[in-house]
Amino acid sequence: MGSSVNFKDELRKRTDEIESILRSYLPEEKGFAITMAKAMNYSVTAGGKRLRPMLMQETYRLFGGTEKTVEPFMAAMEMIHTHSLVHDDLPALDNDDYRRGRATTHKVYGEAMGILSGVALLNYAYEVMLQAFSMTDQTERVIHALQVMAHKTGLYGMLGGQSVDVENDGKPMDKKMIDYIYENKTSALIEASMMTGAILAGASKEETALIEKVAKNVGLAFQIQDDILDVTSTEEELGKPIRSDEKNHKTTYVTLMGIEDASGQVRKLSEEAVLLLESLDRKNEFLNTLVHELVGRRK
Amino acid sequence: MGSSVNFKDELRKRTDEIESILRSYLPEEKGFAITMAKAMNYSVTAGGKRLRPMLMQETYRLFGGTEKTVEPFMAAMEMIHTHSLVHDDLPALDNDDYRRGRATTHKVYGEAMGILSGVALLNYAYEVMLQAFSMTDQTERVIHALQVMAHKTGLYGMLGGQSVDVENDGKPMDKKMIDYIYENKTSALIEASMMTGAILAGASKEETALIEKVAKNVGLAFQIQDDILDVTSTEEELGKPIRSDEKNHKTTYVTLMGIEDASGQVRKLSEEAVLLLESLDRKNEFLNTLVHELVGRRK
Repeated sequence: MGSSVNFKDELRKRTDEIESILRSYLPEEKGFAITMAKAMNYSVTAGGKRLRPMLMQETYRLFGGTEKTVEPFMAAMEMIHTHSLVHDDLPALDNDDYRRGRATTHKVYGEAMGILSGVALLNYAYEVMLQAFSMTDQTERVIHALQVMAHKTGLYGMLGGQSVDVENDGKPMDKKMIDYIYENKTSALIEASMMTGAILAGASKEETALIEKVAKNVGLAFQIQDDILDVTSTEEELGKPIRSDEKNHKTTYVTLMGIEDASGQVRKLSEEAVLLLESLDRKNEFLNTLVHELVGRRK
Repeated sequence: MGSSVNFKDELRKRTDEIESILRSYLPEEKGFAITMAKAMNYSVTAGGKRLRPMLMQETYRLFGGTEKTVEPFMAAMEMIHTHSLVHDDLPALDNDDYRRGRATTHKVYGEAMGILSGVALLNYAYEVMLQAFSMTDQTERVIHALQVMAHKTGLYGMLGGQSVDVENDGKPMDKKMIDYIYENKTSALIEASMMTGAILAGASKEETALIEKVAKNVGLAFQIQDDILDVTSTEEELGKPIRSDEKNHKTTYVTLMGIEDASGQVRKLSEEAVLLLESLDRKNEFLNTLVHELVGRRK
């Protein structure tokens, strides 16, 4: 794993594996509600890094997990994440016509179906996760993982963060509020991903708490790096319009503390995350490199 | 329970009990995401018959259930139902400014918060249901109940029905499609309510299947009665505008087969439901009367 060429090969291999797991859990496109199924699958198969299921699977491997129980949770996590993107793009929220070069779900299927198919994805994630009970004898672990997924997705996690973000759109915000939004809108699902991987593999309470801290740092660093790239990257590199935060009068880490201090924060958070991971008895070299690459990424 | 006076007293008593259970499971209004919590609680506390949790609790009692395990499921069911109303009222769907005499959620909190708090209610329902694992040793029953709730809520249940309804809004529909919409948009959550009550009380597979059939009939009859009241009732009696189906060019049982045959369907479906309930060894007189009153209601 020393060279970045090997890492890229490994990354592609794992992404392909996740892609095939995810597709195996998507709903069939048939029956009266076929348009809803199509809209759900359209948004999920629009691509993306599949970062959250990857972090889940690698954390599961870190703690010695070998069963298939993690797979429905991986698929569900990507469905939950995608649901939040579909709703973020709606006219009443960010009003985006394109995502990853494709027309957004509501542009293709209409606004009502954008709303409903986003909700249906979230609900389908629970249907999929509940299948895990028939895949293992470790019922308690599945229950605990479900509880973490639900909590980090909802009012006290991602959705709460999204609501505060929407409510304060274009208004000046202080660092406390920005931190709340980043920790919930972005970190919460990354925490749920890594914690679920740990829990399903049988990690102890202490180990799961440490993983939560790692994930929180990764999420924050990832989001601050987003702020930085919006200012320092080119449109070609990033694959989407740059300087959008400035145009939208958005408060970010860069507007709050400048590029240099924001970059310092990213370094600090990611170094802390890697140190925490290295403090464990167990090792997953790929996970360490993944965390490192994520926060230092150029796109 | 012979006289309708007694039934009304019993109904009020039970509604009050459900109201207090429901309120005990609502999120606290505090922290950064306080507006989202407020929007969630605003919609849930807007009133309503609490029919679904009542059917759940009475079916639970029918099968001898005595634990508190059913309570989080009752609260969750009302949250799921409310979430569907909040989204139905959105500008992209039915665009309703009022429900039960109060401004709809998006009119008070804005469209973005209407969408997000509706989703948050659905997700919170899962958080609440997952609490049931710590309230009983009957883990398998809770898992089964969760699976039924998720399935009947989603693509293959209420949300699927909602999507087909929206997709065909104002278009002519045949009876097959109307039946699909009624069975999913309306019956699915009533089925989930009664089945969950049965499952949590330890009903057999056969009994649960019978209850599903009862609930399907109740849901259908309830919805057809809605179609009939829209034509035969007065605005004073119904508490909402009448003849709205005609104005919106909606296909209903009344437009498909006329008032007389539609009324015949309601009678047939409800008689069948009561006969099925009476075929069981167990009795719940209140549940029988409730089913009877529901389908014959004047509002």
